[in-house]
Formats: sequence, structure tokens, C-alpha cells
Amino acid sequence: MPVVSITLLPGYDTATQHRMVNRVAQTVRSVIATPEAGTTVFIQEVSTYRRDAKVFSEGRAAHPVASEVVQAFLQAMQERDLKKAQSFLHTDFRMCFPGGVILHTLAELTTWAQSRYATIRKQYDQFEESWQGDATVVFCHGTLAGTWLNGQPFQGIRFIDRIQVQDGLITRQDVWNDLAEHRQA
Amino acid sequence: MPVVSITLLPGYDTATQHRMVNRVAQTVRSVIATPEAGTTVFIQEVSTYRRDAKVFSEGRAAHPVASEVVQAFLQAMQERDLKKAQSFLHTDFRMCFPGGVILHTLAELTTWAQSRYATIRKQYDQFEESWQGDATVVFCHGTLAGTWLNGQPFQGIRFIDRIQVQDGLITRQDVWNDLAEHRQA
Amino acid sequence: MPVVSITLLPGYDTATQHRMVNRVAQTVRSVIATPEAGTTVFIQEVSTYRRDAKVFSEGRAAHPVASEVVQAFLQAMQERDLKKAQSFLHTDFRMCFPGGVILHTLAELTTWAQSRYATIRKQYDQFEESWQGDATVVFCHGTLAGTWLNGQPFQGIRFIDRIQVQDGLITRQDVWNDLAEHRQA
Amino acid sequence: MPVVSITLLPGYDTATQHRMVNRVAQTVRSVIATPEAGTTVFIQEVSTYRRDAKVFSEGRAAHPVASEVVQAFLQAMQERDLKKAQSFLHTDFRMCFPGGVILHTLAELTTWAQSRYATIRKQYDQFEESWQGDATVVFCHGTLAGTWLNGQPFQGIRFIDRIQVQDGLITRQDVWNDLAEHRQA
Amino acid sequence: MPVVSITLLPGYDTATQHRMVNRVAQTVRSVIATPEAGTTVFIQEVSTYRRDAKVFSEGRAAHPVASEVVQAFLQAMQERDLKKAQSFLHTDFRMCFPGGVILHTLAELTTWAQSRYATIRKQYDQFEESWQGDATVVFCHGTLAGTWLNGQPFQGIRFIDRIQVQDGLITRQDVWNDLAEHRQA
Amino acid sequence: MPVVSITLLPGYDTATQHRMVNRVAQTVRSVIATPEAGTTVFIQEVSTYRRDAKVFSEGRAAHPVASEVVQAFLQAMQERDLKKAQSFLHTDFRMCFPGGVILHTLAELTTWAQSRYATIRKQYDQFEESWQGDATVVFCHGTLAGTWLNGQPFQGIRFIDRIQVQDGLITRQDVWNDLAEHRQA
Repeated sequence: MPVVSITLLPGYDTATQHRMVNRVAQTVRSVIATPEAGTTVFIQEVSTYRRDAKVFSEGRAAHPVASEVVQAFLQAMQERDLKKAQSFLHTDFRMCFPGGVILHTLAELTTWAQSRYATIRKQYDQFEESWQGDATVVFCHGTLAGTWLNGQPFQGIRFIDRIQVQDGLITRQDVWNDLAEHRQA
Repeated sequence: MPVVSITLLPGYDTATQHRMVNRVAQTVRSVIATPEAGTTVFIQEVSTYRRDAKVFSEGRAAHPVASEVVQAFLQAMQERDLKKAQSFLHTDFRMCFPGGVILHTLAELTTWAQSRYATIRKQYDQFEESWQGDATVVFCHGTLAGTWLNGQPFQGIRFIDRIQVQDGLITRQDVWNDLAEHRQA
Repeated sequence: MPVVSITLLPGYDTATQHRMVNRVAQTVRSVIATPEAGTTVFIQEVSTYRRDAKVFSEGRAAHPVASEVVQAFLQAMQERDLKKAQSFLHTDFRMCFPGGVILHTLAELTTWAQSRYATIRKQYDQFEESWQGDATVVFCHGTLAGTWLNGQPFQGIRFIDRIQVQDGLITRQDVWNDLAEHRQA
Repeated sequence: MPVVSITLLPGYDTATQHRMVNRVAQTVRSVIATPEAGTTVFIQEVSTYRRDAKVFSEGRAAHPVASEVVQAFLQAMQERDLKKAQSFLHTDFRMCFPGGVILHTLAELTTWAQSRYATIRKQYDQFEESWQGDATVVFCHGTLAGTWLNGQPFQGIRFIDRIQVQDGLITRQDVWNDLAEHRQA
Repeated sequence: MPVVSITLLPGYDTATQHRMVNRVAQTVRSVIATPEAGTTVFIQEVSTYRRDAKVFSEGRAAHPVASEVVQAFLQAMQERDLKKAQSFLHTDFRMCFPGGVILHTLAELTTWAQSRYATIRKQYDQFEESWQGDATVVFCHGTLAGTWLNGQPFQGIRFIDRIQVQDGLITRQDVWNDLAEHRQA
Repeated sequence: MPVVSITLLPGYDTATQHRMVNRVAQTVRSVIATPEAGTTVFIQEVSTYRRDAKVFSEGRAAHPVASEVVQAFLQAMQERDLKKAQSFLHTDFRMCFPGGVILHTLAELTTWAQSRYATIRKQYDQFEESWQGDATVVFCHGTLAGTWLNGQPFQGIRFIDRIQVQDGLITRQDVWNDLAEHRQA
């Protein structure tokens, strides 16, 4: 039953507008038990807009889709294109890996990983976003496949990443996985 | 600059209305780089509402806050109040624990846990919600403290839970943690 | 897909508001091939309203439902309560009956009818309204039963009335029926 | 005093939009005794619209004007262009004529009419529409002129048609007239 | 033709709401040559309102009517109730009188006036407001009557005051009049 | 906290739209103590608009900015371009000058002024508008410089004009100044 009208300055592309109405509909439905059929969201473009004593001629930029930023980063990591991967990172970037290992650079990560496995490859089951205003947190989980340092292959090992995106850049990555569970076995 | 008007049937309590405007503002800001100061969200209550050939006299129920459902469940688990914990679970509930162990009942969980540690206690750093329409997924991460089976204490061991809530009931819990990392050490 | 917001001054009773949203939904659907599921109409009550240099404190009266006015009139006629029937008629009322007979008073009608049949009773299949702004025209059709002047009974004879209602009073009634078809037989 | 805002997807032509605002104004005024001067109706076009989990890029088709469909059908009948007349008819079309004669095809009608009069021509006083959501019912009344089977001319004989239009096609035509009244005389 | 919807938090009294719609209508008509009949302004009260990351439970206070503040001040001056008059003045108050005389206190004014006339009384033809956002400037003009220092009476002498009101307090008063024109004569 | 939506027919130029939102924001803030940051005004253009039984295809003309009309008039007067100055005057124009001198034509003014000073030049400190619906009153104040009839120069002499503008033409000018104060000295 909710009808949501979003008033925007003109100029947003179709993809951004679709993202807006889809997300707002999902959010409204997270609060009220209303079915999709009864949930209406639309965008109205204003002709002229004034707030804070200023007349605005165009709206603020659209954010990139946070999970797409994350996917591009993870893809670059997978391809060992550290330069490209670096381009998605905020200057304050920090990672936290199983065992509570805290790293700040991709170089550190590469070194550390060499003590854990010979090769690794992530397969993603799902990317999920938590919209928190100034930041969007992307969670992705799935399974790891690769080879142990001793050359034995492994696969189907569970992992989850928590990756925080702010203004289009990744500020933090936290990783949990079952590698130790399986290494033990 | 976005101005969002949400039209609802009257009858929602203040907390639900606040939740609605806060979440919608956060969601809008996840799409457009607009500051809080330029983001306006308000609720208008209609006097009469008709859709799908029906005139509605009141809106659909508000969902409970998913992270509060999760917190109450985890609190009951902590207190070993399995009956109360059970009351938060959907009939199709299933858990997945480190090592890919899949369980369906709290009794199974209790048994399985006895092979892992003597006692355990979770300390939560953060609860985060992903609003997905029909379901809300709650992620919580923090640290574990407790005693190993051999009586040695442990603490500060990282964990993350992914808990899916549908219509106020938990349908799925996925758990990752660093216990194996530390057991190994 | 149309979303219709009707802004009214407060004070209209529930029945009037329901009538409003139902009629407007039907009307919108007479223009666009939109299904009921996609048609939303709601009423918003304003707090203060100004037009034509006047601030209004309450809205104009609701009209009575024209087909209910007509039904009450026809019921009074059926019961030969001419005084009550008269109360529904505008001072400029005029009737037109089969054969093009034009009458202005219920007394004339009674006299004229005596040359046509001994008794008559209308059974209504349907009342339909045509909303025309200053006037609403009510069409009702169904069948006549009664006895001819010669005492023979008749029934199932088709009729239709076109009755014009203005400001809650009937200004004109036009009647067509198949009595002559059957009298001939 | 009512202010009606109709939110539509863009793309409707001017004639459809005018029809929409005119009809909705008339309908609103059928419920509340508000003068034209105090009745405001406008159309706002949305930029993006989502309902029922779908983002729509264009609105549903406009219906043809039901009374224009009826006029075109009646015109084709007048001109004995049965093929064209047929094109306006729904496959479930049925007619009901004075005396309760029920027909299903224009051929049947032609045959039946030959037993009633030699020629006939309708002159229309008024077309009136009843907007009923899924269907619009058109009432037209006026007078008949023509020649009886015996070659005598007639004219000024009252008739009314009730014609039901659904999705642009005529599903039902009911006819009443005074031919029998006059044949008797 | 303009339709202005003003969305406010609930709680404003009727007088404030009327002032709001009346002023906004006048302002709109200062920009577009629209007649009163075609100018609609209404207030909608929101149920919940959020901006700048805060949910507001009530709106900002209404300003007193600036010309009423000015009238009360001028009335107190007329009645030589300097204490009351002082209560309408901002701490930064300053006056400017004919000849460019600048004064800061009512005591100074009393002294200065004694060199100009024995008694004085203002008769107001009109109060007019200029709405400038942070301040409202009230202009009042009319005629002065009184007695010169030499005991001769005078009357009908033109004056105009420009009085600036900020947050309900008078920050500045500028006075022009024709006293010198007449003293000369 | 007020959010003002102004619904207009399309076709107004940017400058008019900016003037509209700026003025309405100032006016709203003259009633409620809301800061600029919390004051939102926007214009929505309708696709089709109907009132008073008419569908409008374009809005009423924008008024010229009253203070610009006044400035152009005053500039023409300064330049002794009486023909141009005359073009800004309503046929019912009348002036009122210090001493209560009432004049109707610019020629009268020129003659009268010759008895007061040899030359004069106005320097404007501020133009302020009072929006009154059918009329806008422009107040301008500042200082006069010039030469007395005896050839002595003067400057810095205070003045204020009250100039009433209706439909783009000046209907009335009232002037107060301190010339007499200084002539006396």
C-alpha cells in the first residue's frame, strides 16, 4: 500500500533511476509487510529546486554500485592485476584476515597468502549490500578452490567477505573462511 | 536534494515511521551522493486508499526489526533458553557452521558444539542489515571468548554470522569464525 | 499504473470518501487500459486550503448518490406515496413516456397510466450512472409485470428509464418499454 | 476545492490526457457539490515508475473513446457496411431488441428487421457514457425515421440504445423504441 | 493556475496556517499574472519528517507578525510607555531620523524630539511588509498631528517609517517626514 | 522544515522559475522561523491542467520584476528621457511629493522641481518589494546629491520612495526626503 514519490533534479540516467526505485521499494518492504503488488515507487523530476538559499541546476552525482566496485576489485585480485585492484582502494584501506591478521597493502597480502596456500580462486554465491548512508557494506560469500602449499588441491571451502565502500572506494575488507578447518583435517 | 514522500495508511506507530524515514533516507543516499542536509523524507497519511478494487482501512503490519529478532535469538542461545530461541525460528530453519556442517535443530547444534569447545560467549561489534524485499539478512560480527575442551580459555577470536529473517522468523544462519585458526596454533 | 491523489478539505464521511476513490478509479480505467491491480487512488486531507482569495474551513457538501435518489423515488411511486415521490422532484421536472407522451406532474402520470394498464410493478436488473459534472444521469433497466386493463396478467416486459438528477433532485425522466409490443401480440 | 493529481507514465497523447482530466473532474463533481471554478485536475508524468517488482517504461494503452466506437459502429450499420460494423463487435456480442428478441449476428438482425420496417434511419440526440471500470456503457437516444413495410413513412419515433463496450469492442446492444406504439395507432 | 502544496509538521495554529497560505498566494501572484480564482495554496501536515539525519517531532516556531510587533512598539511609544517599547527592540537597535540623526536609545529619542515639537501623534494609513527571509521590513506611512514648540498645532503632515524586524525584535527604524517642509512655511 | 511544491504549467523561463522559488522561500521564512537549510521549494511542471472546466495549454504570463520596472523608470527620469519614463506609467498615475504636493504628469513634476533645486541625482541604497497580490509596492531609499537653486551643492540627503506597480505599470509614487531639513540649516 505504500506509495513513494521521489523528487529529483533531472539528469539521472535510467540505470540510476531504476536502482533508486528498486532499492527504495525493497527498503520500504523491509519495514512494512506489504507485498510487491501493493508497493509503488516513482520518480518525479522537478523543474527548479531551491534549498539552503541556493537554486540547484543539477543533482549530486550517482554513486557507483558498491557491489560492482567490489566485484571489479575482486576480479582484478583474481587476475593478479594489483595495479588495477589498487585503484579501487581508499588511502585508508585496511584488511583483516583469518586469525585476525591485519594488512594495509596488497603487497603485504600477497606475501602473507604465500604462507597459506599455493593458489586460490573464489566462487561467489551471493553479493549482498547493506545501505548505511555514508557507506555501503558489501557482503559476499561462496567457496574457495585452489591448492595447498603441499600441492594438494582443495575446493568447496566456505568464505565470506565484508567489504566497506565509501564514495566509490573500498575502505575496509574483512575475510572469514574455513581454510583452517580443512587444513586441520 | 532528493525529497521523498511516503504515503501510508494511518495507524503506524512512531517507531515504525521513524524506522521508515531513516531507512529510506539511507537507501536514497546509497544511490546518490547527497549529504544528509540535502535529504528529506517524510510520511503523509492518507485519509482513504484504494488499490486493486479494494478500499483499505488499515495498512499491512510492520515487520519486527530484523536485527532485534536476531539479537533476541542470540541472547536466548547465550542463556541456553532453547525453547525461547526456538520461538524465533522458521520451520524451514537451517544452520551452516565452520567446516560446512549443516544442522537443522538447536539440539543438533548443542551436540555438535560439545565437540568443539566447553563454553563460548559472543561479543558483538556490529549488526548490519541488508534489505532485500521479502527477506532481510542480518550480518553480525565480533569476537568469541570461552574455554576449549581441554579447559584452556580463549578470547578475541573473530566470527561473523549471516542470518536471514523472513516475516519475523529466522530461516537460515551461516556462521564463520577463526576457531580452527586458533586451535591449530 | 496511474496513481491519483485527491486533495480534499477534512470532514467528508467515510462513505463519501469511498465513493470518491471508487468512482475516480473507474473513471481513470475508462480512459486507460490499466488493471485494477495497477490503479491507485487515495485521498489526502489538507490542513488549510486557500483559493480565490478565500481560506476555506470546510468542503462543499457531498451530493447524495444519484441512483439512491432515483431508487427512493421509484420506490415511493411503487408504493403510490405520491407525496414522498414528489419530494424527489425538481420544480422543472418533466417526464416523457412511450409514444412521446410528455407529462409534468405525478397526478398526470397516474391518470395517463390508467389508460394503459390496471397494475404495474418494475423489477430492476441494473442501475447505471453517467457522471456529467453538473448532472448525473441514472439509467435503470429491467422488466415490468402487472395486469392489462382487461385483467390479463403480464410479466417480463423490458423497460429502461433515463433519469436526470441535479443537486439531488430529479429534473427529467424518460421511459421506454415494450408494453406496446406485447399489447399487439 | 478538490485538487486531483494524476501521476502517469509519459507517452499519452494530448487528447487522452484531456479526456482523463475532463472525466476525472466530472466524476469528482458527481460526488461533491463543488463548482467547476473550484475543481482542479492535473497530470504529472513520472520519470520512472515501479510497482509489483517491475519498472515500467510506458503506460498501458489508452482505450478508444467508447462513444466514438459506438458511433462508428452505428454509422457502419446505417450505411449497411456489415463487414465494417462487424469489426467493432466482440466475439461474444449479443443484441436484444423490442419484444425481447435476442440476436447474435448482424445477419440475423437484417433478417429480423425486414419483418418490422422497410427502411430506417436513426437521429441521435445524445450519447452518454457510464464509466464502470472494466466496461463503459454508452447510452444513446434520439428518434427513428423510415418507412413501414406498407410503404408509409414514419418519423420522430423515440428510441434508446444501451451499448456495452469492453476493451474497445461492443459486447452487447440493447434497444428500446416506440415503433410498436406507433404501429398500433 | 499555480497549485502550491506546503508540507509542514503538525502543530501550527490556524492563524499561522492562514497567514502562510495567504502570503504564499500573494507572493506567487507577484511573479505570475494569475488571478485569485486560479491560485490554489494548501498545507499538508506530515506524519513524520526527517532531514539532515534528524527526525523532527515539531516544526520551528512561528514568527510573530512583524507589522503587529511594529504596531505594538509604536503604540507603546505613543503612550510614552518606554519600558514596554524597549521590550520590542533588539540590543543592536538604531534609529535614523530626518536630517540623518542617528540615535540608539529611546531616551536619546525623547531628548531629541523635545527640540522638534511639543507633542506628536501618528495616524497610520497603511502597514506594508517586505518579506526578505531572515528579516521582514515593515513600512508604515500616514500623517503626523501635534503642536510645535511654539504651541501652534499642526496636522496632516506626511511621514513614512521603515522598520526592520528580525526574530520578532526591531533592529532598525528609519523615519522620513515633512515636518521641516511645514516648519519652514 | 517546510517543503513547498509549486505546480505550474510548463513554459516559464528559468529566471521566472528562480524568482518564484526564491520569493516563496523568503515568504515561507517570514512566517516560520525555519533556517534556509531546512527550507525546500521546488517547481513541478504538469503535463495537462484543467480548472474551471477549461484545459489550459500554457500558464499566465510572468510579471516583470517590479523593482526592475521602477529602476528603469527612475533611470529614465535621471536621464531626463521623459518619453521613456512615461512608458512605465499607468494612465491613472499620480505622485505625491514632500509637503503633500500631488502631481499627475512628469511635466508638472519638472516644473515643480525647478522651484526646489537646480539639479538632483539619486543614489540608491536598497530596493525592497512588498508583494501584495494584485500590486507590488517597491520601496527604495538612499541619498540625494545636487545643487540648490542658489548654486550651492548638496549631497547625502536622505530620501525614500514608495512606488506601486500593477500589471507592470507604475500607478503611484510617493516621495519623502530631508531636503527641507537641510535647506533650513
